[in-house]
Amino acid sequence: MSRIITIAREFGSGGRELGRRLAEELGYEYYDHEVITEIAKKTDLAEEYVTQVLHNKPHNLYPITIGQSMSYVGNYTFQQVQSVYKAQHDIIRELAAKSPCVIVGRCADYILQDMEPFRIFVYADMEKRIQRCINRAKPGEDTNPKHVKKTIKRIDKERGRYYEFYTGLEWGDPRNYDLCVNAGEVEMKKFAPLLAKMFKD
Amino acid sequence: MSRIITIAREFGSGGRELGRRLAEELGYEYYDHEVITEIAKKTDLAEEYVTQVLHNKPHNLYPITIGQSMSYVGNYTFQQVQSVYKAQHDIIRELAAKSPCVIVGRCADYILQDMEPFRIFVYADMEKRIQRCINRAKPGEDTNPKHVKKTIKRIDKERGRYYEFYTGLEWGDPRNYDLCVNAGEVEMKKFAPLLAKMFKD
Repeated sequence: MSRIITIAREFGSGGRELGRRLAEELGYEYYDHEVITEIAKKTDLAEEYVTQVLHNKPHNLYPITIGQSMSYVGNYTFQQVQSVYKAQHDIIRELAAKSPCVIVGRCADYILQDMEPFRIFVYADMEKRIQRCINRAKPGEDTNPKHVKKTIKRIDKERGRYYEFYTGLEWGDPRNYDLCVNAGEVEMKKFAPLLAKMFKD
Repeated sequence: MSRIITIAREFGSGGRELGRRLAEELGYEYYDHEVITEIAKKTDLAEEYVTQVLHNKPHNLYPITIGQSMSYVGNYTFQQVQSVYKAQHDIIRELAAKSPCVIVGRCADYILQDMEPFRIFVYADMEKRIQRCINRAKPGEDTNPKHVKKTIKRIDKERGRYYEFYTGLEWGDPRNYDLCVNAGEVEMKKFAPLLAKMFKD
């Protein structure tokens, strides 16, 4: 089995939990926000800016033709976006080459495709995701279910657009993954140790 | 965990193998073609006819409006189709109520939804499915890859149409399943015993 596990996940589904549990069970490195921190270091850009580039509508940062008019961002921004993408690519490949690991998000499944990672997609019903978000909300967060649902939809849309922009593939299409887990139905605490065994020889 | 496992699968993906192995590991009953045999007994119809009704374009057996004209089949055929559907529904529910089991195909995930089965969808890349079909072909079968690919596509289309006709849901949409397994990447021999453990308390 592969020694690299990538996790793509719908917002609020519990994909991160599966990733963390798998890494713990296997003694693998676990990378999530760490990738952004590394990109920020490598590019000398603020983490917030890196996050924005990686999460938010990257196509807005490229020239777009609208009707007859053309709007575009300056060369400098374009180069910054390119440098973030390049840094992400390099860092993810370095981390994966260094030691067995679980990487959450960041199109790692695509970036590492020649290293044949085991690619997991985690999803869940909207109702269960809303409940999970509410249960885990930080003090002061708006936990009105309507608001939470809107946030979930927005973040999923961003993730999907980013993945499709970066890879040309459809985010969440089972064909791009080796295992798709409905985290609303499969109990992660029970499933992770069993799945982990598949990676132990 | 549920004591009922349903398996939907793309043709040639190895879903049946996963089903058989799970049933063996768990000591559950395994139902596949047995359902058709039971329907045939219950309705006094030939197995071939039952198979045709259940696999082949059921919408062709119902009145269809085409432009301004209406073509339909006679009442007798309509009633036969209805009786096959009813028998399928009753038999699958009887089998599931009787003892823990694995049921392959037959929209069992939908028919048993109130019994909360664990719903698995098995899929694989086209290349791997073609190879699997060729490796398992019976003597005399046409193993030309182009022909095999055509057969796979035809049967998948039939399964998809049947599922959608019967359930109103999209066949293969992860949201209708608890676990989607890419059988081209996940080794069934290794995965089935691990997954089986999830059902053992």
